[in-house]
Amino acid sequence: MLPDIQLLKPDVPIELSKVGVTGIRKLVQVSRKDKRPVILIATFEAFVNLPSHLKGVSLSRNFEVIDEVIESLTAQPIENIEDLVIKIAEILLERHEYATRAEVSMVADFIMRKKTPKSGQKTQEVVKIFSDAIASIDGKKIVFVGAEVSGITVCPCAQELVKSKAIEKLMEMGYSEKEISKIISAVPIASHNQRGRAKIKIQVRDDFRVSITKLIEIAKSAMSFETFEILKRDDELDIVEKAHCNPMFVEDSVRKMALELIKAYPHAPNDILVFLRQENEESIHQHNVIAEKIATIGELKAEINL
Amino acid sequence: MLPDIQLLKPDVPIELSKVGVTGIRKLVQVSRKDKRPVILIATFEAFVNLPSHLKGVSLSRNFEVIDEVIESLTAQPIENIEDLVIKIAEILLERHEYATRAEVSMVADFIMRKKTPKSGQKTQEVVKIFSDAIASIDGKKIVFVGAEVSGITVCPCAQELVKSKAIEKLMEMGYSEKEISKIISAVPIASHNQRGRAKIKIQVRDDFRVSITKLIEIAKSAMSFETFEILKRDDELDIVEKAHCNPMFVEDSVRKMALELIKAYPHAPNDILVFLRQENEESIHQHNVIAEKIATIGELKAEINL
Amino acid sequence: MLPDIQLLKPDVPIELSKVGVTGIRKLVQVSRKDKRPVILIATFEAFVNLPSHLKGVSLSRNFEVIDEVIESLTAQPIENIEDLVIKIAEILLERHEYATRAEVSMVADFIMRKKTPKSGQKTQEVVKIFSDAIASIDGKKIVFVGAEVSGITVCPCAQELVKSKAIEKLMEMGYSEKEISKIISAVPIASHNQRGRAKIKIQVRDDFRVSITKLIEIAKSAMSFETFEILKRDDELDIVEKAHCNPMFVEDSVRKMALELIKAYPHAPNDILVFLRQENEESIHQHNVIAEKIATIGELKAEINL
Amino acid sequence: MLPDIQLLKPDVPIELSKVGVTGIRKLVQVSRKDKRPVILIATFEAFVNLPSHLKGVSLSRNFEVIDEVIESLTAQPIENIEDLVIKIAEILLERHEYATRAEVSMVADFIMRKKTPKSGQKTQEVVKIFSDAIASIDGKKIVFVGAEVSGITVCPCAQELVKSKAIEKLMEMGYSEKEISKIISAVPIASHNQRGRAKIKIQVRDDFRVSITKLIEIAKSAMSFETFEILKRDDELDIVEKAHCNPMFVEDSVRKMALELIKAYPHAPNDILVFLRQENEESIHQHNVIAEKIATIGELKAEINL
Repeated sequence: MLPDIQLLKPDVPIELSKVGVTGIRKLVQVSRKDKRPVILIATFEAFVNLPSHLKGVSLSRNFEVIDEVIESLTAQPIENIEDLVIKIAEILLERHEYATRAEVSMVADFIMRKKTPKSGQKTQEVVKIFSDAIASIDGKKIVFVGAEVSGITVCPCAQELVKSKAIEKLMEMGYSEKEISKIISAVPIASHNQRGRAKIKIQVRDDFRVSITKLIEIAKSAMSFETFEILKRDDELDIVEKAHCNPMFVEDSVRKMALELIKAYPHAPNDILVFLRQENEESIHQHNVIAEKIATIGELKAEINL
Repeated sequence: MLPDIQLLKPDVPIELSKVGVTGIRKLVQVSRKDKRPVILIATFEAFVNLPSHLKGVSLSRNFEVIDEVIESLTAQPIENIEDLVIKIAEILLERHEYATRAEVSMVADFIMRKKTPKSGQKTQEVVKIFSDAIASIDGKKIVFVGAEVSGITVCPCAQELVKSKAIEKLMEMGYSEKEISKIISAVPIASHNQRGRAKIKIQVRDDFRVSITKLIEIAKSAMSFETFEILKRDDELDIVEKAHCNPMFVEDSVRKMALELIKAYPHAPNDILVFLRQENEESIHQHNVIAEKIATIGELKAEINL
Repeated sequence: MLPDIQLLKPDVPIELSKVGVTGIRKLVQVSRKDKRPVILIATFEAFVNLPSHLKGVSLSRNFEVIDEVIESLTAQPIENIEDLVIKIAEILLERHEYATRAEVSMVADFIMRKKTPKSGQKTQEVVKIFSDAIASIDGKKIVFVGAEVSGITVCPCAQELVKSKAIEKLMEMGYSEKEISKIISAVPIASHNQRGRAKIKIQVRDDFRVSITKLIEIAKSAMSFETFEILKRDDELDIVEKAHCNPMFVEDSVRKMALELIKAYPHAPNDILVFLRQENEESIHQHNVIAEKIATIGELKAEINL
Repeated sequence: MLPDIQLLKPDVPIELSKVGVTGIRKLVQVSRKDKRPVILIATFEAFVNLPSHLKGVSLSRNFEVIDEVIESLTAQPIENIEDLVIKIAEILLERHEYATRAEVSMVADFIMRKKTPKSGQKTQEVVKIFSDAIASIDGKKIVFVGAEVSGITVCPCAQELVKSKAIEKLMEMGYSEKEISKIISAVPIASHNQRGRAKIKIQVRDDFRVSITKLIEIAKSAMSFETFEILKRDDELDIVEKAHCNPMFVEDSVRKMALELIKAYPHAPNDILVFLRQENEESIHQHNVIAEKIATIGELKAEINL
């Protein structure tokens, strides 16, 4: 029989917080009502903790479990990504009898079909979706799902500066305040704008589930406008105009996501955790700007005071 | 005067956990005794929290502060990276009178000079060094420094499997156990081996400082052997032999770092936090394997029982 | 009517070699005999040249064409990726009546199912496949297909150095040359080994087609052994032993690909272009090593002299 | 003596186009008149060709040469990066007596100091600079230097669409053509804008040298405006206004670079090769758009007809 060095006692007997793998890639099919399943190329991470008296976790067992679960579950389309991730974590715990905690996460690019706003051209959009689960030996589990989408964000500050100076010039040219107000409303005012990425991650439980499609919608609503791969000229005009009527700081984006989330899930339990993040690839800088909010649903509700 | 839209009240009045920037790159010079300063191209992140009654943090103030501090501190070489990072966090707090918490981190590639083990060829090695600081309005601060180094790791499990089968073959060939033991010690046994990355991050305080050079040494000691950019044939032989006499799982690497850290800093306070991580780019897989340990010095000491 | 600024005369009247897009991502289904189609998430680039008298190519037309072709072709599974890429290039040329050349490329991760060598565990492997096409107004086209696969490579040089020293030691221990030869053949000798990537790109034409599956096989054969995501202990032993019996420099890998390609396609026309490349992520260095061969089939045949 | 397996005859006797390394990182100091030297962390690639009768190029010699040349040249600051790259290529050829061609390239991030346009704040900017050299055994060499800079680009097409509709609205509001023209000139018109990257690469020879600082200037002039890491509000206003008065397609950027290059080097030999490229990270799309021009100086002059 082959020796199993991984069961030996280690030289330095400390427990390890996490032992596992990153970068496991698999095909995953998610079923949809009355439609062909969604195909995802997902990337998984999986970890267990390792007590101090074992030299090495038998790492290959992690992979077997991941593969077995995914192979068996993907023989037919799965219902949703969070159940897949929980299932993997639970079976990892069962198979690693010495472990008291298992962590699993997956992330995938999801290609959505959509239409342009004016000309109605069919096109596709890439959205990142993900789910994380931690399962404990005592049966507790913490599970998150989420999405990250791209969009255009227009800076309100620069637009206000440009507008303010334009108003001054129009006043010097002799226009009245009332006229200026009408002119300004007719001419979309320049600002800097850029690619943004809105990210929502929210806890799910047996008593609280969310729709990833809904999360994607909320994330999109948090930027000045959506982006598209095809744009006819009337689409392009429409997007630029609408985005400039809806300028947003990174802070505004995060606050908008908080608000829309509370509106979409008014009955969400107060202790559900939420993570919101907006990142803008500033067109006037080499660096990016970021805003984040980490809170429970209860805290969000109290702050927003709906 | 130009309007300051960032002082307006936001539509959704929630506090933001973090508002700030990523990807700020600067030249930093770190002074050394009796030597030319070390030159780093560092990348900074900087964040403050933002109360619910302000629309947008005046983001440009973050940059001014970062730039002013770095400009003024790098006019002459700095003492160490943690003091730089703390200083930036503290001044960010001072300048953002509404903020109660500031977070700053920097990471840089550090090019070290070294010599090959046998032929003594001069060469250079790239090591990642970093520091993070969180400063609060009440004067508390939490600061970490760390390093991440590359090395070669040899798998003990595969080596044991290969050895076990070789012993069987030698027994079939009629050699005695004693002879086989001598033969095996003369012939370095094959295994799979790969690039590894060892990472140490440790808390520092007014009453506890560490040397980054020491952290780099400890991280290097946690893999089967160091790597080099130039290797003469006798160096290459030396490295392969020594690495194969020192096979290590990712778990072993993390445990070795824990042990060496305790030995190097026997008087470190018990509540100092430590984060250790080993990642191996497995040569027999497309995925990586990882082990992590997060603990206080006190917990490490209790477990290791030195 | 909306103005079309893209048809204006530019200020600096020079022809542009390439105008187009990168990073267009689409779902592509490739049909297989008696099996479910392969699902790919492909990334496309598409360019045309632009004469000096036009200000801007009407870029949105590129996207429409790409989308239309892909939408219509992927309503049902496609036959192969090269025909898709050629078709896009040809239609781009038709739609951009001023352009005389169109270039299109696609690359995708292809998830293959396979079994481990000993225990026969089912697992999946990620392989990169790609195709490029250039179409000219005069009807000429140049088309390539290719694949890039991962594997393990064992260094022959370090192994020879280790072996040579082991032989010396065994001689000092009193073993005869004949005995040493038998011992050495029973004990797999250590070397350094690492992740490698073998890449083949070959021209295809109406009179010469290749199978991407065959290219993947050839690329795999050019490294010391394949890699797998799941490995039982007897698989791991098998891989390490076999890889160490088949040590290969980057140069050997490229030469092996050349040989296997000629053997697989003995009737390939002499003017077919071939690009071969091996990259090893050296486990004893921070840098990578590379070998490349660019030649026609005729040149390869003449050199190899089969 | 240690065996040298790299001098053996290979099994498949074909010449290799390129054998070498990527990812060699070194500190490089470039001297400047009356100033402290510029510090670069440079990444090198180095290749030679390998004839069919040698099994493996003695790869370690590449590294020795690279290291020796850089160690000796960087003991004191170098004059310029192209001479460094040529020198490495020439010495590689000398040391690899069987090789007939050597290729070397380096790329580095260069941190430039600059001031904001209005408030004059000191800040830093990261610019990529690079040089490539191919040296042949017959003494011929081909050498390039270049730079890639970031900037903001405003889309002329979207701006024209927005303006056109604004004019229509103003006409409906009863303003005369003359008034509208004055209003429009007072109000910067919205468009989409984004991060762009302009890249210039140009051949240098004994009879023709360029200044990298000049190339950086030309590349910057090819976008709607520069970007800055610090911006006071009056700087931000200035940049947004100026960028919107200077909208540019990717095609315009490439043509502007061509023009400025010809103006800056009116006496450049006609056979000097030039490579120009503009890439915009479109804020209304997930993909990027690109324009490229590859030509000789003579061709550029003929087309531009200055």
